[in-house]
Amino acid sequence: MSERRLAGIDVTPLAGVGTVVWYRPDADLPEPPAPEDVDGEAEFAAFEAARDEAEAELDEERERTAERVGEDEAAVFDAHAQFLTDPQIADGVAERIDGGLPATHAVRETFDEFVEQFAGMEGKMAERADDLRDVRDRLLRILTDGERVDLSALPEGSVVFAERLTPSDTAQLDPERVAGFATVTGGRTSHAAIFARSLAIPAVVGVGEALNDVADGETVVVDGDAGEVVVDPDEDTVAAASEDATAPVREGAVETVDGTEIEVAANVGTPAELGPAAERGADGVGLFRTEFLFLDRDDAPDEDEQYAAYREAIETFPDGRVVVRTLDVGGDKPVPYLDLPAEENPFLGERGIRRSLGPDADLFETQLRALLRADADTDVGSLAVMLPLVATVEEIEAAETVLEGVVDDLRDEGVDAERPEFGVMIETPAAAFMADAFVPHVDFFSIGTNDLAQYVMAAERGNDAVADLGDFRQPAVLRAIDAAARAAEGTDVWVGMCGEMAGDPELTELLVGLGLTELSMSAVTVPAVKARVAEIDTEAATALAERALAAASKDEVTDLLT
Amino acid sequence: MSERRLAGIDVTPLAGVGTVVWYRPDADLPEPPAPEDVDGEAEFAAFEAARDEAEAELDEERERTAERVGEDEAAVFDAHAQFLTDPQIADGVAERIDGGLPATHAVRETFDEFVEQFAGMEGKMAERADDLRDVRDRLLRILTDGERVDLSALPEGSVVFAERLTPSDTAQLDPERVAGFATVTGGRTSHAAIFARSLAIPAVVGVGEALNDVADGETVVVDGDAGEVVVDPDEDTVAAASEDATAPVREGAVETVDGTEIEVAANVGTPAELGPAAERGADGVGLFRTEFLFLDRDDAPDEDEQYAAYREAIETFPDGRVVVRTLDVGGDKPVPYLDLPAEENPFLGERGIRRSLGPDADLFETQLRALLRADADTDVGSLAVMLPLVATVEEIEAAETVLEGVVDDLRDEGVDAERPEFGVMIETPAAAFMADAFVPHVDFFSIGTNDLAQYVMAAERGNDAVADLGDFRQPAVLRAIDAAARAAEGTDVWVGMCGEMAGDPELTELLVGLGLTELSMSAVTVPAVKARVAEIDTEAATALAERALAAASKDEVTDLLT
Repeated sequence: MSERRLAGIDVTPLAGVGTVVWYRPDADLPEPPAPEDVDGEAEFAAFEAARDEAEAELDEERERTAERVGEDEAAVFDAHAQFLTDPQIADGVAERIDGGLPATHAVRETFDEFVEQFAGMEGKMAERADDLRDVRDRLLRILTDGERVDLSALPEGSVVFAERLTPSDTAQLDPERVAGFATVTGGRTSHAAIFARSLAIPAVVGVGEALNDVADGETVVVDGDAGEVVVDPDEDTVAAASEDATAPVREGAVETVDGTEIEVAANVGTPAELGPAAERGADGVGLFRTEFLFLDRDDAPDEDEQYAAYREAIETFPDGRVVVRTLDVGGDKPVPYLDLPAEENPFLGERGIRRSLGPDADLFETQLRALLRADADTDVGSLAVMLPLVATVEEIEAAETVLEGVVDDLRDEGVDAERPEFGVMIETPAAAFMADAFVPHVDFFSIGTNDLAQYVMAAERGNDAVADLGDFRQPAVLRAIDAAARAAEGTDVWVGMCGEMAGDPELTELLVGLGLTELSMSAVTVPAVKARVAEIDTEAATALAERALAAASKDEVTDLLT
Repeated sequence: MSERRLAGIDVTPLAGVGTVVWYRPDADLPEPPAPEDVDGEAEFAAFEAARDEAEAELDEERERTAERVGEDEAAVFDAHAQFLTDPQIADGVAERIDGGLPATHAVRETFDEFVEQFAGMEGKMAERADDLRDVRDRLLRILTDGERVDLSALPEGSVVFAERLTPSDTAQLDPERVAGFATVTGGRTSHAAIFARSLAIPAVVGVGEALNDVADGETVVVDGDAGEVVVDPDEDTVAAASEDATAPVREGAVETVDGTEIEVAANVGTPAELGPAAERGADGVGLFRTEFLFLDRDDAPDEDEQYAAYREAIETFPDGRVVVRTLDVGGDKPVPYLDLPAEENPFLGERGIRRSLGPDADLFETQLRALLRADADTDVGSLAVMLPLVATVEEIEAAETVLEGVVDDLRDEGVDAERPEFGVMIETPAAAFMADAFVPHVDFFSIGTNDLAQYVMAAERGNDAVADLGDFRQPAVLRAIDAAARAAEGTDVWVGMCGEMAGDPELTELLVGLGLTELSMSAVTVPAVKARVAEIDTEAATALAERALAAASKDEVTDLLT
């Protein structure tokens, strides 16, 4: 029998081989017993006990996720804990138990009622439905006590198949034991996909109903690069996958075939990711997000706490540059001590540098002090400070003034502070249009493609109804990138990219052709991008970029790339 | 005694002279009587009667506003009616009356409690506080029975001064009797400012506390052009204001001094605005918003109802072009029969052409049928169809296919349908970047500066915290406009503008210099812009535009303009 290939969406440029374990947390419950056979009190006690256990699990998984992946990703468990203690839900369950249902069925019906309400909505509201399903399945797993697959105790070499995997599910997966996963639903920006990239697990999502035809125990290859699940793989396929899974790590700088050095760096969201980034051969950190220091706490971190984190980052890459983005929060993220306004359109609101030059001016100064002290004390001189969401020259000038003031203050205090490399993210269309006016003020541009694509196309990437419009292959997005690159051409300003686009090896040639000399990405894709850089001829890349810039549609660009 | 000038924000390019009437709906109530002197039952009955009267007033004002201003603006009264019948509020009032307060004080305290909750928030939530104050003041006016100024029965020549004017307040103002108004608070996009422009009332907002020093009965000039209130004006000031208030209407096309014809058209939101637009000398309609046909109703309008409205528009301007924008709704406006999704960032969501090519495809076809039939039957041939929020070439192609299908269908049915002028709004940065690729597909571009500025700067205009960033004088916004104008240069595609920017006479020279040949605006500013066009020398305008495009900041642009 020859192998079968099921197409899905590629999530991670890794492949894995293993044995299928179906995870069906929402499998059908048996018919409920007759109401007169149900002991209401016992069932309610069982529900309460399950709730306590679920709460303890959530606490633990929250901790684990915060440590392994990041505070941002861990926040979802707080939402889950809230559903667990929601009085409307508790009342619904209690009523149904009173009506003669066992706790399992009462939980099932109550949650499904709320799931239905949310599922009809779009975007983030629909994600609440996912969260509810997640809490429901957790309670059902506890109530049915081990009749379901335990993701945290899978045999080594398992490939998990599921309708979908929730954040709770993926948090339980042990990357050392799991060879990969594949899901029926989900897209490139689903929770499961993001977790897979963070933890470097081979994964394919959105395979569709065909996945259901693959039985437990079959051998499969999950090819997260091609976006394929291969059932009953041939020997060659298995060999290729095994090779792929151990894609070679390249230490040190990479060059194109004609000798242009391209810095390949990592995006890092927490200090815990620094070591793995270095292990995967990242030349440095192209985007050190500092939000982890500020989120999910009651007070702002003080200067010394920040200093320690920044110092760790600089010391992890003694030979490479560490680009630290100053605090980038706004109305879409709750930070209790910052008094963030509720905004109708938070992505068009008071975010990033706007807050650092406004209501969060004190925090901004403290952050710069911590950064410059860490830089001075490590004496590596590799720190670069990067401002998020810049839209005007005045913002850069104002931030520069604050930075210079901090340098002076620190010197007065006896710290050997230096002005670090200073740059801005190009993530608003305004920044692309005004890049030539920014040049005299900065050392570098780093293009943030996630936001840039969103604003250029006026399409939120998290909104499924318009996500396709925000594709990086849209020629309008390429032209915005080009505008920034052209403005810096022939100057001392270097141009990099730290958006998701930088991590796609299929786009590397195009980006080099546009004139970018630094690419920063999830650590997991560093080896593949480094390998790709080494194959590129700059002249051919430039010609490719020219053709892409002249294209009239995303499809034309896609054709050029294949 | 010489005149005193108080600076505020200019709202309408009109001046008025009159006598100050202070409107203080929230003036302090007298001390309440002792609880034992309050007849609870009578007070509650008074509250209920006031509530009924307020409800009747709201119904009537809703009707009047819908007719005079538009359905969109009238919708606010529905929100007010909801507060009026809100059970939490009714309970709060009842409790306080039970506690011994008279109805007036109970209403005051209850509403203020809710006002405080909302007022601490930003943006649209803060506007809810305004709505609540508005309902509170309405109830208090009724309960105190005429002890307050009645805005609908002011003596002719009154200039209304107020802390702020709510939609209910402005809806009562009779433009024939009121010479103008001035408010302590408010900005250019406040309800009061929008109403003033729609009804052509001279107005200055945001004067600040200094306004409180002007007494009832003083003579003032409200100069909505300069943004000034002149107290005790000199004879010359009064003469100038009187002249200004009757700025001459110019019929027919206007040219620059060197003979470039500039079409000056009106933005129209309802059929009721068509006549006044023609009276003010508009050459045509540069933006006929069609949302009025679709909002605030339970079913979509049928083809014939739409046909009648479009025909009226075309017939009102037998010699001028009528540019009709196809339906532009999205997640920020409730339209019950459209099933619009709740979106995290509705301005980056499924709006405009995205819906017309997706879930609202049927409506789009019906709208095009109605438009083409109206065009065929009037036989004027002046219809232009314009697509909102276009971001890609594919969208234009898809809409073109639908349009051609409608032409074919109508011809099959015996209607003498022609392909109308066909164009797109340039309001996404993507459209500005891709304008050269749009050119082969369209007859015109119309730049929608409100949205364009918002997306280019990543700053929502309705969000006070970032509104300043979205200023039209930002050089990034000018460069986006320039990109579209340059793409059309030397082709048959004409470039116009239908955003608010087009109605500011201070910017007319710059816009002509950028190559725009059509400007569409609120009817009230048509005479002033026509007058300005006639003074412009194209060569000087081009030089001005070049300098503005080279500017690094909004301040530099502002300096160039003055």
